[in-house]
Amino acid sequence: MVDQNASRDGRAGRPRSGLATPRRRAAAPLPLPPLGDQDLADAARLLEQAAPAAALAALRALPDLADRGRLLGDLAPHRQAAIVALMERGELAAMVAVMPHDERADLFKRLDEAARESLLPALAAPERDDLRALAAHPEGTVGAVMTSDFATLDIGQTAAEAIDSLRRQAPDSETIYQAFAVGAAGDLLGAIGLRDLLLAAPDTPVAALLNRHPPVVRAGDPREAAARLIARYDLIALPVLDARDRLVGIITYDDAMDVAEAEATEDFFRAGSVAEIPLPVRRASILRLYRSRITWLIVLVFGNILSGLGIAAYESTIEAYVALVFFLPLLIASGGNAGAQSATLMVRALATGDVRAGDWASMIGREVLVALLLGGSMALAVSMIGFVRGGADIALIVSLAMIVIVLIGSLTGISLPFLLGRLRMDPAIASAPLVTSLADAMGVLVYFAIAAQILDLPA
Amino acid sequence: MVDQNASRDGRAGRPRSGLATPRRRAAAPLPLPPLGDQDLADAARLLEQAAPAAALAALRALPDLADRGRLLGDLAPHRQAAIVALMERGELAAMVAVMPHDERADLFKRLDEAARESLLPALAAPERDDLRALAAHPEGTVGAVMTSDFATLDIGQTAAEAIDSLRRQAPDSETIYQAFAVGAAGDLLGAIGLRDLLLAAPDTPVAALLNRHPPVVRAGDPREAAARLIARYDLIALPVLDARDRLVGIITYDDAMDVAEAEATEDFFRAGSVAEIPLPVRRASILRLYRSRITWLIVLVFGNILSGLGIAAYESTIEAYVALVFFLPLLIASGGNAGAQSATLMVRALATGDVRAGDWASMIGREVLVALLLGGSMALAVSMIGFVRGGADIALIVSLAMIVIVLIGSLTGISLPFLLGRLRMDPAIASAPLVTSLADAMGVLVYFAIAAQILDLPA
Repeated sequence: MVDQNASRDGRAGRPRSGLATPRRRAAAPLPLPPLGDQDLADAARLLEQAAPAAALAALRALPDLADRGRLLGDLAPHRQAAIVALMERGELAAMVAVMPHDERADLFKRLDEAARESLLPALAAPERDDLRALAAHPEGTVGAVMTSDFATLDIGQTAAEAIDSLRRQAPDSETIYQAFAVGAAGDLLGAIGLRDLLLAAPDTPVAALLNRHPPVVRAGDPREAAARLIARYDLIALPVLDARDRLVGIITYDDAMDVAEAEATEDFFRAGSVAEIPLPVRRASILRLYRSRITWLIVLVFGNILSGLGIAAYESTIEAYVALVFFLPLLIASGGNAGAQSATLMVRALATGDVRAGDWASMIGREVLVALLLGGSMALAVSMIGFVRGGADIALIVSLAMIVIVLIGSLTGISLPFLLGRLRMDPAIASAPLVTSLADAMGVLVYFAIAAQILDLPA
Repeated sequence: MVDQNASRDGRAGRPRSGLATPRRRAAAPLPLPPLGDQDLADAARLLEQAAPAAALAALRALPDLADRGRLLGDLAPHRQAAIVALMERGELAAMVAVMPHDERADLFKRLDEAARESLLPALAAPERDDLRALAAHPEGTVGAVMTSDFATLDIGQTAAEAIDSLRRQAPDSETIYQAFAVGAAGDLLGAIGLRDLLLAAPDTPVAALLNRHPPVVRAGDPREAAARLIARYDLIALPVLDARDRLVGIITYDDAMDVAEAEATEDFFRAGSVAEIPLPVRRASILRLYRSRITWLIVLVFGNILSGLGIAAYESTIEAYVALVFFLPLLIASGGNAGAQSATLMVRALATGDVRAGDWASMIGREVLVALLLGGSMALAVSMIGFVRGGADIALIVSLAMIVIVLIGSLTGISLPFLLGRLRMDPAIASAPLVTSLADAMGVLVYFAIAAQILDLPA
């Protein structure tokens, strides 16, 4: 029933046998190119481009049920939902029984209440329990990404027996390159790589080969913690423990890659003041795109009113010397740009773990020096323009304002991510637009205050 | 000489034996905590925190040369350089001989000319050639990330013979979970996973199990192409071919993770108008931080002068109605913010392959609708403020200007990444600050043009 290559390991090798055996190429006159020629990822892309009914027909034409399950699991969520909606309960239940455990839990979570209630009784008890347990973990946690089909070993086995046991578990395991020894209470005794088993003398006890203190993660931890551990230790699979120290799942390296990409996208969007969009942008509806952007834009409008109020306070200065307005966008934008740069450096450094929440004090001293150098260089550039347009006074005002504004912008940009972290918010919220709005308002005040002072104008 | 766990696969299992055997804990009275207790990544962190001389002493205290080589390879570049500088030529050559091939090539590239010239004669000929070949690939290409210590199989072998052969190659291979059959001319005949070898009957010919069309990448391709293939096909190792179709290396999944993180950082920095910094930010010098930021800031200064010129053109409008300046920061910032959002969505979608260069036309129509909705909502918000501060005329001017400015900003933000891609530049250069500066200048002109028209003022 289950294809021999139905696992993560198989993907590293040849295409799954059921998807690639030439004899199956002629399987059926499909409206789609035959999936038998394709690797899993390519077959999934083909199905995603077809209409749901055609995709379902192509799926059914695969002779091996496990192939169907795996392919269904590999589809983009919205395509998967469209195809599943066309299936009868029995067919879906048979498919779910052979799908990788993490992917079937994701599918289950996306079904509506009625579909779930209808599906559960059609499943065998172990599958039902596994599905419920995996689907119960909140989004964003390790538990929501992990899979429960890991390979286990008996601590009393020899290396040769363990290899035999892995061979038997292969069809139902996400990976056999990393296996785990589990105690009577379900507690993790240790981890071992297939490589070590192969290299050991056949009669070596597993107990002697076991790494008894492998890196572990908790099911309730944020998913990026697992991705970071896997990247740091170059792991193939990271064991996941529940609150009572029992092994409940694994995170594989390919899941870690997906998590890292999703987290990078999230930070990137936050840095651009865009709320997350679950679908690919290309497919998102107008309304969803609108909703992902309007909140921040309105928030920033009110931030920018502060700049307006600053200007209103200096209206008589402006009336007396309207040429000052020429430099206004330039000065406030420079503060915002410098601030956006500082925020960018800090947000990424905090995200990759290069800088920690406690490092703020040590970063701020260097930032002052960098900002003074930057502000000084830019003051030099604009003082010449100031001199040409308005003489020595204006050159002086614009230069001084530039230095102070770049300093303020940079310090805002570097401090905001730390402050957000302290408030238990994502530092990536310290986006370029947010920092720019704050720097703008402060820039207006600094500029006109300096101008009023030097030109001896009324405030 | 070489530790049995000296590979990527070993990291997934127990700590390398040489780094974890209890008997070795008491090895030497070091100024560092004993490395014997540590996993490779942890030992590397410990060494990085020590002074170079202390780190070298701790390294030398490891009894196994392969352990030393692997640990040295795992250190951050600047720490590695500091330690290598303290080594004599013979010691370095011995270390290089046992280091993973990709890491020793990276080390070699970072040595200065004199150190390279001194090292090469001390190496055996095959190592010298390998080092020269790997180090010759330009930064950013697949060749610069790949490793040449891959496992090979003979197409005439049986599955059992192949497993035996992998066992023998394990100590010198980056991974044995994925092996490659190579023809007489060095051409790639196919790939096979250890899992498939284990599951096959022992006398099955390798030729029957081989995937003859695995995904491949070229040594000259950009490194992110390899990372994307590995993520898409969930590969453990991706074969790399040279221009003459010969297998010259592999990229492993853990290298793909590092590449993906580096690429995400690069895009993130570009989006914030910061040039790349090779060191961790925490350790970068003041001057390096300055250099990474000043170019863009100066470029943007000249961009913002356009806004100033726009204002200068409407100086008489401003003199006649100075209250207009109140809304200036608000309006131009809103256009910049909307543009930054659009650019963020597009840059990321292009980077993840969700949107392609040819999709511009289909994106622009939807963007117009989204921008009109956004501009309309924001016009509603500011028209009230405009009414309170200046009456119906001002409310009308501000609302109209807001809609046009948000539309222009959004279209700029969505088009710039495509345009840059067309010019063969990185779309990520379409940073928030760049889009903001462009939107600012256009916003000034739009605002005052509308105001002059409605208030019937001289331009």
